[in-house]
Amino acid sequence: MALNQSIAFAGSPIDRADNLRADPAALAGLMNWKARLLKLDGLMPELDEQGRLGWGTLADAPEDAELVFLGLDRSEGGEKPCFAAVPAEGDSRPRMANPQLWALMATLDRGDLALYGGARSLTDWHARHRFCAQCGAPTHLAKGGWQRTCGTCKAEHFPRTDPVTIMLAEFEGRLMLGRGKGWPEGAFSALAGFVEPGETIEEAVAREVFEESGVRVRDVTYVASQPWPFPSQLMIGCHSHANNDALTIDETEMAEIRWFTREEVAASMEGDGPFRAPPPHAIACNLMQWWLEKTA
Amino acid sequence: MALNQSIAFAGSPIDRADNLRADPAALAGLMNWKARLLKLDGLMPELDEQGRLGWGTLADAPEDAELVFLGLDRSEGGEKPCFAAVPAEGDSRPRMANPQLWALMATLDRGDLALYGGARSLTDWHARHRFCAQCGAPTHLAKGGWQRTCGTCKAEHFPRTDPVTIMLAEFEGRLMLGRGKGWPEGAFSALAGFVEPGETIEEAVAREVFEESGVRVRDVTYVASQPWPFPSQLMIGCHSHANNDALTIDETEMAEIRWFTREEVAASMEGDGPFRAPPPHAIACNLMQWWLEKTA
Repeated sequence: MALNQSIAFAGSPIDRADNLRADPAALAGLMNWKARLLKLDGLMPELDEQGRLGWGTLADAPEDAELVFLGLDRSEGGEKPCFAAVPAEGDSRPRMANPQLWALMATLDRGDLALYGGARSLTDWHARHRFCAQCGAPTHLAKGGWQRTCGTCKAEHFPRTDPVTIMLAEFEGRLMLGRGKGWPEGAFSALAGFVEPGETIEEAVAREVFEESGVRVRDVTYVASQPWPFPSQLMIGCHSHANNDALTIDETEMAEIRWFTREEVAASMEGDGPFRAPPPHAIACNLMQWWLEKTA
Repeated sequence: MALNQSIAFAGSPIDRADNLRADPAALAGLMNWKARLLKLDGLMPELDEQGRLGWGTLADAPEDAELVFLGLDRSEGGEKPCFAAVPAEGDSRPRMANPQLWALMATLDRGDLALYGGARSLTDWHARHRFCAQCGAPTHLAKGGWQRTCGTCKAEHFPRTDPVTIMLAEFEGRLMLGRGKGWPEGAFSALAGFVEPGETIEEAVAREVFEESGVRVRDVTYVASQPWPFPSQLMIGCHSHANNDALTIDETEMAEIRWFTREEVAASMEGDGPFRAPPPHAIACNLMQWWLEKTA
């Protein structure tokens, strides 16, 4: 429970009120003077003077903007419908967390960060899915932003959430950590990879570790999960036991993979060890903290 | 471990050999006389005389077919590259498991079922994603079928895997089960729903149970997962404890929700109880079996 409560991008205070999404009359009724519009500059939030998420009214949205219904905010008493506008321009480049975003994660209130992350994934998906993958015709936003519908072939499209496994592999008290290609010298984290069609979480973990390190793992257990809005991953954090420590590194993906002792991991998490630990808002950091506590 | 080994659609014998996907020369080299083509009629498998998956050669594929590289089969010694052809026509209708498919699940060898499920999800995704969601232009298959690339804006698109939570909720020794709208009279199963952008697995479980039943749950734990190829879900099976048993049923989704005692669940799983249990290849059945063993 303590672990789940320390996961960044979790803990949104908003009621998604999904029963209202498919009810056009109810949705129209929510678009009133009480409704709040999340202030975004493209995909980045505009903060208020207190460093909280900035909010305006629906009148601030461009005339032709597509609006996504995020849910109902009851945090200040009453019931405020919350919306976000889809950016006019999509951008298909990979969306990694950049320095500006890491700074935001470090300062934004927990609930605000979760609300922003969900809104970001959703508006970004709309901006990059204005056409029908089935027939190529334009699509339009439907069900309060939880669907797009093709105007021509009527195909229905839904926001993506891509499951990614991220895993610790342990062997005789040491932890396998890797440095991806292009990462700064000394930065190590848990290995990770997308769950593919046709495999369980446990199979994805075992495949990914074997592909990247050449090591077979067993006894995969689930630890915790995190929504990661760059652009829209569900990070599924796991632990596993390695059968041996003989590394065969996949050099197309990884610059280095190494085994670290508990003492080395603990020192690095304190900023005083042999590697640079993942930032506190990444689930890899939660997993390593969990492992240190488990093995204390 | 016994639980994971009883999950249907898991346990594919194939090596996905993902390192070969991004290597056009290696892929071309695999398309030789040893390569096998999965025999499909649309999305349904063509079985051989032993009731196993039928295989042909690449010469059986239409001249202009898009081919997906499934991986390497080493089950008979040697190393056979396995492919499947994308159906010419996509179909955007929801892909539920139909009676023909349930029959297939009951008879197909475990490894064959897993291999077929993965191939089905993948070829189905290609057939329904021939256009770019970003700009509407045609896309082409890339990386051995693990990507599509837009010929115009160059956007890269990847096969979908949609995480779905499916959960048991327990209160004072009784289990909450539901009958969805349109399900046969007497058929009950675990509640389920898609994980949405901006939430953890645990949050999705709690939201889904509350939306459908009005009951708050706590202490969510992960039990097992299953790839479900209709069209491409990752079923994430969980257990939770309900705070109370006062039901407020969402009648837009559910026909009935009821609480069943351990004895009622056990009898129904034996085919002799108050409800019709989910079929053995659905993870709901594994979850209920797990719960019976846990509470034995």
